[in-house]
Amino acid sequence: MNYRMIKHTLGWLLLFESAFFAVPIITAAAYKETEILSFALSMLICAAFAAIFLIGKPKNRVLYAREGFVIVALSWIFISIFGSLPFVFSGVTNSYIDALFETVSGFTTTGATIFSDVEALPNSINIWRCFTHWIGGMGVLVFILAFIPLSGGQNMHIMKAESTGPSVSKLVPRVRTTALILYVIYFALTILQFILLLCGGMSVFEALCTAFGTAGTGGFGIKNDSFNSYSPYLQIVVTAFMLLFSLNFSAYYLAFKGKFKDALSTEIKVFLCVVATAIAIITFNIYKTFGSVGEALRHAAFTVASMISTTGYSTVDFDLWPSICQVVLVLIMFVGACVGSTGGGIKISRFIILFKGIGNEIKRLLHPRRVQKITIDDRTVETDVVRSVNSYIMVFLSIFITSLLLISIENHDLVTNFTAVTATINNIGPGLSKVGPTQNFAFFSAPSKLVLMFNMLAGRLELFPMLLLFSPSTWRNK
Amino acid sequence: MNYRMIKHTLGWLLLFESAFFAVPIITAAAYKETEILSFALSMLICAAFAAIFLIGKPKNRVLYAREGFVIVALSWIFISIFGSLPFVFSGVTNSYIDALFETVSGFTTTGATIFSDVEALPNSINIWRCFTHWIGGMGVLVFILAFIPLSGGQNMHIMKAESTGPSVSKLVPRVRTTALILYVIYFALTILQFILLLCGGMSVFEALCTAFGTAGTGGFGIKNDSFNSYSPYLQIVVTAFMLLFSLNFSAYYLAFKGKFKDALSTEIKVFLCVVATAIAIITFNIYKTFGSVGEALRHAAFTVASMISTTGYSTVDFDLWPSICQVVLVLIMFVGACVGSTGGGIKISRFIILFKGIGNEIKRLLHPRRVQKITIDDRTVETDVVRSVNSYIMVFLSIFITSLLLISIENHDLVTNFTAVTATINNIGPGLSKVGPTQNFAFFSAPSKLVLMFNMLAGRLELFPMLLLFSPSTWRNK
Repeated sequence: MNYRMIKHTLGWLLLFESAFFAVPIITAAAYKETEILSFALSMLICAAFAAIFLIGKPKNRVLYAREGFVIVALSWIFISIFGSLPFVFSGVTNSYIDALFETVSGFTTTGATIFSDVEALPNSINIWRCFTHWIGGMGVLVFILAFIPLSGGQNMHIMKAESTGPSVSKLVPRVRTTALILYVIYFALTILQFILLLCGGMSVFEALCTAFGTAGTGGFGIKNDSFNSYSPYLQIVVTAFMLLFSLNFSAYYLAFKGKFKDALSTEIKVFLCVVATAIAIITFNIYKTFGSVGEALRHAAFTVASMISTTGYSTVDFDLWPSICQVVLVLIMFVGACVGSTGGGIKISRFIILFKGIGNEIKRLLHPRRVQKITIDDRTVETDVVRSVNSYIMVFLSIFITSLLLISIENHDLVTNFTAVTATINNIGPGLSKVGPTQNFAFFSAPSKLVLMFNMLAGRLELFPMLLLFSPSTWRNK
Repeated sequence: MNYRMIKHTLGWLLLFESAFFAVPIITAAAYKETEILSFALSMLICAAFAAIFLIGKPKNRVLYAREGFVIVALSWIFISIFGSLPFVFSGVTNSYIDALFETVSGFTTTGATIFSDVEALPNSINIWRCFTHWIGGMGVLVFILAFIPLSGGQNMHIMKAESTGPSVSKLVPRVRTTALILYVIYFALTILQFILLLCGGMSVFEALCTAFGTAGTGGFGIKNDSFNSYSPYLQIVVTAFMLLFSLNFSAYYLAFKGKFKDALSTEIKVFLCVVATAIAIITFNIYKTFGSVGEALRHAAFTVASMISTTGYSTVDFDLWPSICQVVLVLIMFVGACVGSTGGGIKISRFIILFKGIGNEIKRLLHPRRVQKITIDDRTVETDVVRSVNSYIMVFLSIFITSLLLISIENHDLVTNFTAVTATINNIGPGLSKVGPTQNFAFFSAPSKLVLMFNMLAGRLELFPMLLLFSPSTWRNK
């Protein structure tokens, strides 16, 4: 294990994080909030640790797969620990566990909050909450990779461990350029949404918070009723952008290059079909409770986009909707967004591979001797990828069930327990019953909060980095 | 598709079924119940159809894999349709769907009932309900295979499609002898339990019904409170036999042959560990509500044995237990029994293969170039088997989710919907909430009952026979 390289990378991470604190500091200055001191102190501590970590350059810059996983897992734990400092210093919460929960929920773009009255929070605290979504959305190490050549050519191991999907394809041969292109697209889309929100009458502060939260598919609200009181125009803009941020970002790059046919991949087509079906089912089942089909459609579209993109904003309390709507919503929470997006969940691509695998298995039962292959977009999916997708689901279920058992010790109702785990491991935010869209996660005990934090991190990093961190064989030498 | 052979096999099936009606007919005669006529009429109709189907011997007796699946799926549908006749003729229910539901639930050893007052049913009806469990437990076609040489050597395809587990191993080279040995063990254990129940003061009728229900891991009760009012001795005997019928029957054969070390396979060890852990967790969480740890332990052991063996008897209303107990129970419902037993669920062996697969995947991430193999009991598990286990879980989840969506249209609560599907696809019987141990399945609409019947059949036949029956490629020529 190359400990020096790990330390070095964490140093860069903390240096960037101390720079990120500039955003809430400027906000606090603009609104003349005393929280400016909390953020400045956090920035200082972060920079100090960065300096200590960056002392002495590592001679051996080689990274293997396991170092990649460890760096990514530790980075996300470190950025969360230091990111929680302002919540503690400013006194918005008395509990350190709650501060850490809010920060992990922010960076992992989950959006599950421990605050019952977010409108009472200072603007600088709220913009920091939303900004953590934006940083976590595309991946903080991917951001660093775009600017700093961390290791001697093995950056791919880091990129692979932080990005989403069963197989990561580089847009261009160089990892660094790929990282840069991804962030340019991310920036451009965020700014576009910001402008459209301003046009709808939002203040600069509100538009910024909302754009950050949507881009990262995070979901922290800055209003107690989330998006209920915003105008239909604003709700529609947010619906559209939640879906846009759920698409594989390489589609935008391909479209920009003029390759429109390649941009519209099978994954995106399937994603849009799932979205349309879910909206149709829900609209059909709720239109009686709303004044018109149009209004029902708007709320259904917003909720479906919010759940499948794993954002977690809400316009209505869907905990009150009929059973069938709730089942559909819980299902699309697991489905999730496209790979290479900022969204969470299990991801559309994995389901395509799984279903094609089932089809092959049925054919194999009928014709045992024929060789079956899986192809997507005219490319053969390697058997290694198919096997790793299957393992992914099994590991996912194992973590899910273990977490469910652990938080069930608290004796809340089954729906609360089940959807709390669903909403955290898929990085969504709200669930149903006691963790429904009008509720929050403050009532859980500290051990349960730790379990849920582990779920958020495992979900965001696609399980294996977090799992390997706790596996003895990772740390065994040779 | 060899239609003549399919017809011929179904003919034998119906001939055997008409003979099975002798059991309730003798019971009705003993208790002087007028239902004797309903059963005699059912027997006659069954025999008539058998005669029609058996006219003309098929010249071509060759069976391929797909005929095996189709024969098994159709056999179970036919035996259920004809088995439901007595419920209709006797007038114990007015609804044909309910009669069919009860019969499918019986043969598949599910034990989910539509009767709210089983004590009011005639004894002949009750013994038929329990006897269907016994017939379905080890497999009706396995029973026929023990006596009739159906096809020219391809009986393995039928045996494979009706038996449980990812890979069926024959005890002896000949399929027919294997089938015979299995039924001898089944008979011997049933009789042993019958005698032990008589010793505990049960009447011959009660002991017979209970032994049938336990042997098939079925779960139809003949008392409205299931096993609540029986003595601790009887509860303990039933607990022991539910566990004995959950073990792989080849263990008994090996033990009989003196190979005790081989008999205690990894699967059986894991099964016993899971049972012990579940009992410990539940006892710890309920001992306060009972007078003593001993009593809590007895109820916990009975409930765990009942759920993991997928029998479905109950001594207490576990719907009232703390969340953690309910989560444990729902989990072991999915785990299920050992392969080659009469129990349902996903089966211990599959989980062993899955977890070993996850272990390998983690090692592969750290050391991409090393070749990893899965071994159980010193034998290598073929990659084909590993892949088919993964597919099994995916197909299982697909059927589960589709069923959940379909029955959610009725708008019952989420726990009811979720556990109703869990209890049927795993062939258990009771679930939680509205389908809890003190409730029944009568309130579901006819379409939902059809979905649940499909689940029971799919669960009992390990998914693929039912799935292939509805797959166009099964029926395509060439």
